[in-house]
Amino acid sequence: MNGIHPQKEASPNLLAMYSATRAYTEKLCEPLEIEDYIPQPSVDVSPPKWNIAHTTWFFEEMILKKFVPGYKVFDENFGFLFNSYYNSIGTRTVRDHRGDLSRPTVKHVFAYRKYVDEKISELLSKEVSEEIAGLIILGINHEQQHQELFLADLKYTLSVNPLFPVYDESFNEIECAESGASGFVEIEAGVYEIGHSGDGFYFDNERGRHNVYLHDFSMSRYLVTNAEFLIFIADGGYKDFRFWHSEGWDWVNQNRVDSPLYWQEKDGEWLNFTLGGLQKLHLDAPVSHLSFYEASAFAEYKGMRLPTELEWETASGGFDWGLRWEWTGSAYLPYPGFSKPAGAVGEYNGKFMINQMVLRGSSIATPPNHSRKTYRNFFHPHLRWQFTGLRLVR
Amino acid sequence: MNGIHPQKEASPNLLAMYSATRAYTEKLCEPLEIEDYIPQPSVDVSPPKWNIAHTTWFFEEMILKKFVPGYKVFDENFGFLFNSYYNSIGTRTVRDHRGDLSRPTVKHVFAYRKYVDEKISELLSKEVSEEIAGLIILGINHEQQHQELFLADLKYTLSVNPLFPVYDESFNEIECAESGASGFVEIEAGVYEIGHSGDGFYFDNERGRHNVYLHDFSMSRYLVTNAEFLIFIADGGYKDFRFWHSEGWDWVNQNRVDSPLYWQEKDGEWLNFTLGGLQKLHLDAPVSHLSFYEASAFAEYKGMRLPTELEWETASGGFDWGLRWEWTGSAYLPYPGFSKPAGAVGEYNGKFMINQMVLRGSSIATPPNHSRKTYRNFFHPHLRWQFTGLRLVR
Amino acid sequence: MNGIHPQKEASPNLLAMYSATRAYTEKLCEPLEIEDYIPQPSVDVSPPKWNIAHTTWFFEEMILKKFVPGYKVFDENFGFLFNSYYNSIGTRTVRDHRGDLSRPTVKHVFAYRKYVDEKISELLSKEVSEEIAGLIILGINHEQQHQELFLADLKYTLSVNPLFPVYDESFNEIECAESGASGFVEIEAGVYEIGHSGDGFYFDNERGRHNVYLHDFSMSRYLVTNAEFLIFIADGGYKDFRFWHSEGWDWVNQNRVDSPLYWQEKDGEWLNFTLGGLQKLHLDAPVSHLSFYEASAFAEYKGMRLPTELEWETASGGFDWGLRWEWTGSAYLPYPGFSKPAGAVGEYNGKFMINQMVLRGSSIATPPNHSRKTYRNFFHPHLRWQFTGLRLVR
Amino acid sequence: MNGIHPQKEASPNLLAMYSATRAYTEKLCEPLEIEDYIPQPSVDVSPPKWNIAHTTWFFEEMILKKFVPGYKVFDENFGFLFNSYYNSIGTRTVRDHRGDLSRPTVKHVFAYRKYVDEKISELLSKEVSEEIAGLIILGINHEQQHQELFLADLKYTLSVNPLFPVYDESFNEIECAESGASGFVEIEAGVYEIGHSGDGFYFDNERGRHNVYLHDFSMSRYLVTNAEFLIFIADGGYKDFRFWHSEGWDWVNQNRVDSPLYWQEKDGEWLNFTLGGLQKLHLDAPVSHLSFYEASAFAEYKGMRLPTELEWETASGGFDWGLRWEWTGSAYLPYPGFSKPAGAVGEYNGKFMINQMVLRGSSIATPPNHSRKTYRNFFHPHLRWQFTGLRLVR
Repeated sequence: MNGIHPQKEASPNLLAMYSATRAYTEKLCEPLEIEDYIPQPSVDVSPPKWNIAHTTWFFEEMILKKFVPGYKVFDENFGFLFNSYYNSIGTRTVRDHRGDLSRPTVKHVFAYRKYVDEKISELLSKEVSEEIAGLIILGINHEQQHQELFLADLKYTLSVNPLFPVYDESFNEIECAESGASGFVEIEAGVYEIGHSGDGFYFDNERGRHNVYLHDFSMSRYLVTNAEFLIFIADGGYKDFRFWHSEGWDWVNQNRVDSPLYWQEKDGEWLNFTLGGLQKLHLDAPVSHLSFYEASAFAEYKGMRLPTELEWETASGGFDWGLRWEWTGSAYLPYPGFSKPAGAVGEYNGKFMINQMVLRGSSIATPPNHSRKTYRNFFHPHLRWQFTGLRLVR
Repeated sequence: MNGIHPQKEASPNLLAMYSATRAYTEKLCEPLEIEDYIPQPSVDVSPPKWNIAHTTWFFEEMILKKFVPGYKVFDENFGFLFNSYYNSIGTRTVRDHRGDLSRPTVKHVFAYRKYVDEKISELLSKEVSEEIAGLIILGINHEQQHQELFLADLKYTLSVNPLFPVYDESFNEIECAESGASGFVEIEAGVYEIGHSGDGFYFDNERGRHNVYLHDFSMSRYLVTNAEFLIFIADGGYKDFRFWHSEGWDWVNQNRVDSPLYWQEKDGEWLNFTLGGLQKLHLDAPVSHLSFYEASAFAEYKGMRLPTELEWETASGGFDWGLRWEWTGSAYLPYPGFSKPAGAVGEYNGKFMINQMVLRGSSIATPPNHSRKTYRNFFHPHLRWQFTGLRLVR
Repeated sequence: MNGIHPQKEASPNLLAMYSATRAYTEKLCEPLEIEDYIPQPSVDVSPPKWNIAHTTWFFEEMILKKFVPGYKVFDENFGFLFNSYYNSIGTRTVRDHRGDLSRPTVKHVFAYRKYVDEKISELLSKEVSEEIAGLIILGINHEQQHQELFLADLKYTLSVNPLFPVYDESFNEIECAESGASGFVEIEAGVYEIGHSGDGFYFDNERGRHNVYLHDFSMSRYLVTNAEFLIFIADGGYKDFRFWHSEGWDWVNQNRVDSPLYWQEKDGEWLNFTLGGLQKLHLDAPVSHLSFYEASAFAEYKGMRLPTELEWETASGGFDWGLRWEWTGSAYLPYPGFSKPAGAVGEYNGKFMINQMVLRGSSIATPPNHSRKTYRNFFHPHLRWQFTGLRLVR
Repeated sequence: MNGIHPQKEASPNLLAMYSATRAYTEKLCEPLEIEDYIPQPSVDVSPPKWNIAHTTWFFEEMILKKFVPGYKVFDENFGFLFNSYYNSIGTRTVRDHRGDLSRPTVKHVFAYRKYVDEKISELLSKEVSEEIAGLIILGINHEQQHQELFLADLKYTLSVNPLFPVYDESFNEIECAESGASGFVEIEAGVYEIGHSGDGFYFDNERGRHNVYLHDFSMSRYLVTNAEFLIFIADGGYKDFRFWHSEGWDWVNQNRVDSPLYWQEKDGEWLNFTLGGLQKLHLDAPVSHLSFYEASAFAEYKGMRLPTELEWETASGGFDWGLRWEWTGSAYLPYPGFSKPAGAVGEYNGKFMINQMVLRGSSIATPPNHSRKTYRNFFHPHLRWQFTGLRLVR
């Protein structure tokens, strides 16, 4: 998961931003039954209860405990229960046991949110230091990341249930505004600038505008669609080792993968499980829930390749993006001059820079105001429970 | 888990028995929050929601669907969701994924119970055949077994929560009525009769009164206590391979076992997690939550041994029992002349007769009217989440 | 593997017995290439080098080091390398890493054998105490057990090689002298005596002649044949859960078992890998290399059952046996009055009395003079690399 | 393992090159006992027998079978036994079962080598096509790679043996010619050229000289030494999560890693297992047998970082290298314009370009004439059985 790091202090209306973000999380919870907050069917997903408590814990741990004299924590045990991976802060619930916890109740977790919201509101009712403002913005961005995870995780949990429960019938995953797009953006070889260094919030992993040398390339203006991916399947794409990385081929065979996650063929028809329920597969929509291995194999099959993240950032002004996270051919590694901040916030990004691939863009599950062209998302190459697709380069 | 098989048709007041059993299950649910119904932290335990739905499914599947013309199932999916291990009936939710399901909601499961209760009540309002009566009684005994599992499973789930939630403060696990007992029952060598063959309900695995030859033995009148087990620990019992089976010794070392399940030492004091909450260890209470390996090692340490199930049954008139399931030194195997009934009910007991050890007696979690001296309970030797203790023989 | 315990001191011609046993081991080695001494393709088998060194180590560790003043061990490291499971004696090579060791060389191990043989010969050239004589006999029986393991382990190792190497073309596994036998031995109910207590060597697990009560039974005079087992296969025996223990059914499905070990169907013909090479399946030979699960499923399919070990011992005068170890329906548990001897020899049998089933008789791989009707062999129910078959009871 | 791809046809004296390479392999075998050819104690290493047969199989499969009319294969089974990972060619021995095979004998494998050598010699006694010449050179380079693996694999196998066998007393791993070097090479920012495109052999993964933009950096002239690494250990480097990648930290804890592979502390002194035997740790020698995680943690501890492979190649003229493979901070990914050749040779490099890190330089185990500054070696970040070290950048 994305770690986070704030670069700049905030705008004057910090409290409004804070409140809007917190309200958005609670709006996401509205369709849920209490039972939905609990299960964790895979180590890669977190229960909704954990997601909404952990984002609250972040504000308590990083801000209230440090900067509000005499602050009384809501519950002594929550530091342990809702810490995610911050070794600096102490031991924590092992990541694959988050679904074992029935208590605290959902009601109690919402009380926790309310308590922390009140304390943060008090704090922000007066002028705050740049450090506090920076941490508030960091916490907001952190919660936004968990809003996206909330949806992707929940989708996975609902999907393993043979009842195929509907999260929200009006949730539309299959937008295909781009489907009219066609052709390629052409970029000429040369030295380009990459990375973030301006105003506004950005994470430490995208910091540092710097030169890179790019060779000529042409990048597709549209995302690969379900229809195109169906042809890959029909053409035996999952059964021909030549398109696959060696580890991808092992992954396909060990897991008997033969289609994107959430697809199922029934009586000759392809169905797709979505947050709006089980639906017919929409052919013109961008393909989603691919692993890096699948995205790469598809590109190989087409005789093309994935863009590097540097190419993507450079060409990104030439096409629409935002419906699917786009796998790139770049490993997740530090930019020149990267260094980890001291303390817990230093644990967000740097320590994950191994064995993961970069994704660019954003997805239909990304909350408003949480995307930019320099944003570096990253996942292990076999994972596909996020809304992940691809764009081709030749 | 115990499979089940009815031997005899029922008393005239079947409906009263049925209603009392169903009500008892719902009484056990009263202290629960909705969240408590969901988690499954180990493959050996089932979520409360599953337990209360599965026992209902049993009545629907085995009786209503077969004997009530035009019966309409409550939900087509429940046959799949709440089947436990009956291969005859079709595929089923894999046993270690019961905790992944948020839906159906708890409310919906209670509606399911109510629906089935109404249909069974209608059925029992008139005279029923012997076959139906037998299956009703079987279903009642089945639900009673799950009442005991309900408590043992729930205890395990609450125990892995660092908040140590209390199920019911008035639940008293630590009775020690027997602590006054002392001495040994003496039995002389000879041919004895074992097994059940009279009136009343019994399972197929205890059927068939038959001769066995026993040698002289003396059986303790009381269960081993926490105080005695503490001495074993203090004496290095968990660190001396000589007391252990080879597989028990591996189990101790791989799991770093150094005390009974639910015990923890804190600041020099022994605490014990119970359904009434985390408590000081009660020294005079019978030790509980031992694996067969631990029970056997303790006996070896004392220079004695566990009784065989044949010895236990023969001597059982000479002492009080019922607070803890008692590990015996007998493997769970068929009695002479045992044969599996045809159809799904044949899957209960016979197919588990390998790699398990017999326990005799009953426990503080066993529901009323569900124990008898011929009852054969059985678990794998490493399991200890049930209320299991031991009695010594020399 | 069978642990061992001597009961009685030896005959006057100890040295002759010792030498004959040692020579027999070396005769078994004759067909081997040096390379054959090394691999260990499964945790359940040991490399020939280990087998022949370990039996030597037993004489050095239990006798020479203890009773020969000033004895100089052949190599200090061998105590660690060739100890099997004797915790009393110290740490040891982990059992599944025996195939990782290229050194000591085979030549060096034979030098070790020669060295120990000389020292034992010196010792036995004079009168020895009863204790020493007993340990010599124990060591002889121990080596005989490893002679049988030598062949079964080697067969497994050769079988995983796509070249299907031949151990010895003249090795005949498929004797079927019994095939003329037919009918059943009838035994009447009553109290019988079981166990060993006379002269001659026996293990501690068979010690103690004692009464048991048996019910009427009829035991087949012949072993189940390959032809009979083929019918079970053709009849869908491996695909019908009703014949199987629950754990057996899991074992079948997880390992995709569809025939006895070493069978393979090729171009419509059944082949059988033997120590004499890959051969056509011999229909009249007794079926071999079954797990307990398969033996039990076959009996269930035939509407019969396996004998208990008590029944087997009682009826064993009424038929020929010795071609295949015969699975019984008895768990491996202590006889009445069993107790473990002190020290390392106490680790042989008692600590394995859990989760294993008893086999009676002996097999074509059992060395001469190493079988008797009271002998209790035992293996886990899923294992089948030994020469294991079955006989039916009704 | 490195895949391979030839770029250019060969020099006139192909046969001399071929013969020299084949002879070098056999020279490496001289110190071995037959037993040493067999074990495979880890999936990452191959037995010597497999290494020397596989390199022979390569010449047979890629050249003799394709270009020599009427060529008769030495043994039909070897295609299966000694194929490594070429899916194009058919099924193969599973990689972690190479140590299960006692046959063919070592003698037979040497006969195989001789047979193929004769056939290749015949072939090269006349003029050959460019294609054949290219494949011969490829086969030579392939065998050279396996010469290095031979030593690294053998070292690992010997190391797990408590006897600590010596491969060759004169094998000197601890050269420290560089220890006189000091200071840093300074490189200025700008566009540089990277990759190979000239004459001579190179692999497909290093093909294509192309521009990259580098920022200013300073690279150490010497490799990190054992003495420096000891300070890291003494300073708690293995116990401080802040220096480690998250996955590296898990690796350290799960495997209880506390020093480089082959180090052991005994009576307060550090020993190091080498191909020359167990020795005192040589303080001035370059540290070896580090995983990427350890190399990276050390750099983090020193407040510096690993070079990228692009930096390394650019600066490599300014220092001596060749004693240890040097971990870089670059993931193993395709160069611009990379494409896989058709057929089996296309399976060498491209399909491994995920989850691995690049190493540059060469090691003391690399055969003569098999290193160049554009060479890209690669391994998974947790592996350390190769001769791997590091050089720092600031």
